[in-house]
Amino acid sequence: MIYFDNSATTKPFPEVVDSFVKVSSEFFGNPSSIHRLGVEAESLLAQARKQIGELLQVNPREVYFTSGGTESNNLAIKGTALMYRNRGKHIITSAVEHASVREAFQQLKELGFRITVVPVDTEGRVSISDIEDAICHDTILVSIMHVNNEVGTIQPIKEIGNMLKGYSKILFHVDYVQGVGKVALDIQRYHIDLCSISAHKFHGLKGTGVLVVREGVQISPLFSGGNQEWKLRSGTENVAGAVSMAKALRLTLQSYKTKLSQISEVQSYLLKELQALEDIVIHTPSKGQAPHIINFSVKGFRGEVFVHALEEKGLIVSTTSACSSKKKAISHTLLAMNVSKEVAESAIRMSLSYENTLEEASKAVSIIQTTATELREVMH
Amino acid sequence: MIYFDNSATTKPFPEVVDSFVKVSSEFFGNPSSIHRLGVEAESLLAQARKQIGELLQVNPREVYFTSGGTESNNLAIKGTALMYRNRGKHIITSAVEHASVREAFQQLKELGFRITVVPVDTEGRVSISDIEDAICHDTILVSIMHVNNEVGTIQPIKEIGNMLKGYSKILFHVDYVQGVGKVALDIQRYHIDLCSISAHKFHGLKGTGVLVVREGVQISPLFSGGNQEWKLRSGTENVAGAVSMAKALRLTLQSYKTKLSQISEVQSYLLKELQALEDIVIHTPSKGQAPHIINFSVKGFRGEVFVHALEEKGLIVSTTSACSSKKKAISHTLLAMNVSKEVAESAIRMSLSYENTLEEASKAVSIIQTTATELREVMH
Ligand SMILES: Cc1ncc(COP(=O)(O)O)c(C=O)c1O
Ligand SMILES: Cc1ncc(COP(=O)(O)O)c(C=O)c1O
Repeated sequence: MIYFDNSATTKPFPEVVDSFVKVSSEFFGNPSSIHRLGVEAESLLAQARKQIGELLQVNPREVYFTSGGTESNNLAIKGTALMYRNRGKHIITSAVEHASVREAFQQLKELGFRITVVPVDTEGRVSISDIEDAICHDTILVSIMHVNNEVGTIQPIKEIGNMLKGYSKILFHVDYVQGVGKVALDIQRYHIDLCSISAHKFHGLKGTGVLVVREGVQISPLFSGGNQEWKLRSGTENVAGAVSMAKALRLTLQSYKTKLSQISEVQSYLLKELQALEDIVIHTPSKGQAPHIINFSVKGFRGEVFVHALEEKGLIVSTTSACSSKKKAISHTLLAMNVSKEVAESAIRMSLSYENTLEEASKAVSIIQTTATELREVMH
Repeated sequence: MIYFDNSATTKPFPEVVDSFVKVSSEFFGNPSSIHRLGVEAESLLAQARKQIGELLQVNPREVYFTSGGTESNNLAIKGTALMYRNRGKHIITSAVEHASVREAFQQLKELGFRITVVPVDTEGRVSISDIEDAICHDTILVSIMHVNNEVGTIQPIKEIGNMLKGYSKILFHVDYVQGVGKVALDIQRYHIDLCSISAHKFHGLKGTGVLVVREGVQISPLFSGGNQEWKLRSGTENVAGAVSMAKALRLTLQSYKTKLSQISEVQSYLLKELQALEDIVIHTPSKGQAPHIINFSVKGFRGEVFVHALEEKGLIVSTTSACSSKKKAISHTLLAMNVSKEVAESAIRMSLSYENTLEEASKAVSIIQTTATELREVMH
């Protein structure tokens, strides 16, 4: 089996699972307890926070543990809206965000917020001036993703951050879920106030994530209660999850240092070989894209038909994002990039991890080629 | 070490950890993916949901996976408030709820809801007529816990549910976190609409929980996004967490069947022996209490001093609830029960699991006795 669906989820590293087991079994105390078992658990949690802070180059105090990317995005967006609803009711996002950002905005719209959804160009990229033009006197939040999960386009986060520096009352949230370990992001220097990550996208465990909340930034909690995580996210902490996430992040950032050229080479190879095939349109831009996502359409076949046919031959890929794939929804991102509905319906996403090899890529290309030929024969 | 702090958290069963490892490592697919790995993960999730449904005697379709008790409580309460804010702005709870209910109510109060907090008697029990008297034309929610986490009092959930049956526009939420596997609760027959549980309280893993939402009951999500969990709780599902929670629940309910008399015997022994000691006041009622919690004050010593002294001798207990213990907050529950501030400050909670034995209980009593004597000597 060749697993090229790493943007949907990744296989956890064995070391990550081992950490989880060790902490759950041996250090099961409640970090809030004042006795030794609590103190041990609390210190493991603090250590995980410190490691993650160092790896993300933020203060450990700015690292808030959550249950994943969806929670982090919802907490950032709704937490800001709730906190500053009396200051302003206008919020800005892009047309290519993950559903957890898009739908959070929709929910706020129903609650009386005004939302602006800035468009993207044919490569899926927002323009800084569109964002700046959208800013009103009562804008409280701009939420723009880092790497798009469907086509891999990198957004100009640095430039947006720089522009927003001039607007002290607007918070800047970045969905960094797909970028972690693949494309560097300097949270501090890019003036990001809120930043979401999710461990299962980098060989960590499902159900664990982080929202970075920069010092001085205040948002309202979604979970109130025992006041864990400095009152921002109450609930008994998933200590083993946090420790294992720190490990996954460390290992992933090691791969970033040592294997970035390898994954880029695999991507270049795939883009080049696919480009050469008949009736294939590549949607992933060839510049300013993350190294792990390749999105293309094989004209004439619905994406899910092709995905199942590839699976028969041992190649695991997806149509759009995992959470949209079952609903057979057409990719928001591709439509926003002005791809026709018909071509968008044929889209296939391949997404790599550092574990994938050129050999797998070469096999994948020949599987795609054979499958396309066979399906064409069947259909004629 | 004698661990008598099971209401703070429990040690996960080895089988629970094993399930988690197996599922995370071998079935790591994203349940939303349409390929085989996704389908496998989805079917494990469905199986866990079915098992939990059967164990809780509700329809699997009514089982929504969350990250724990705090999330379940917040989702139930805020989800109701958000959904029915145009129908009514009045919500009712009791004076002895867990912080995750109490603080969710406070947050809603700040957002313009009217809240009624019904009192409890000296045993920590609410009165049904107080609740009924509090109901207004615009009441949308009553949230009452099942077993109190600090003193173990069981609330008259059946009677409250029966009374509320007459008010079709009021949802009934029950925080069942401390009751699971210790005191039976018939969600269906007691007319409960929303019911929270948390796995780490019954030898499952931290970061996993359930909100039962009865069919036909609608609430707004806190996390919007990919529409997992029938749109009520988006986010990539923690499949391994759900499977391991189902196992923890099954094993715990087995213990309930076979070891209830044993744990009750340990509790009776502790209550009797402690009662006989000098200067000890028992707060746990001797009737209508859960079998695993024993709350008492050793007059003259602050709770945390006593907890640390017991720990030195290998007995692990707590002051109040874990999440309040670090803040040195005085127990809300005891104050609501009309215990004096001074006595409440001396409170100690021992909480048992089915793993605890009479032998441990007997050791614990002698440790408590010796510790009290020694501390008294030091202080004179
Ligand atoms: C860009 C992006 N944001 C957010 C999420 C949601 O994260 P999670 O799966 O942890 O809920 C995902 C993946 O599902 C994603 O790709
Ligand atoms: C009665 C009660 N409700 C809710 C909770 C919160 O659950 P969790 O620890 O899973 O957030 C707890 C324990 O902390 C509890 O004892």
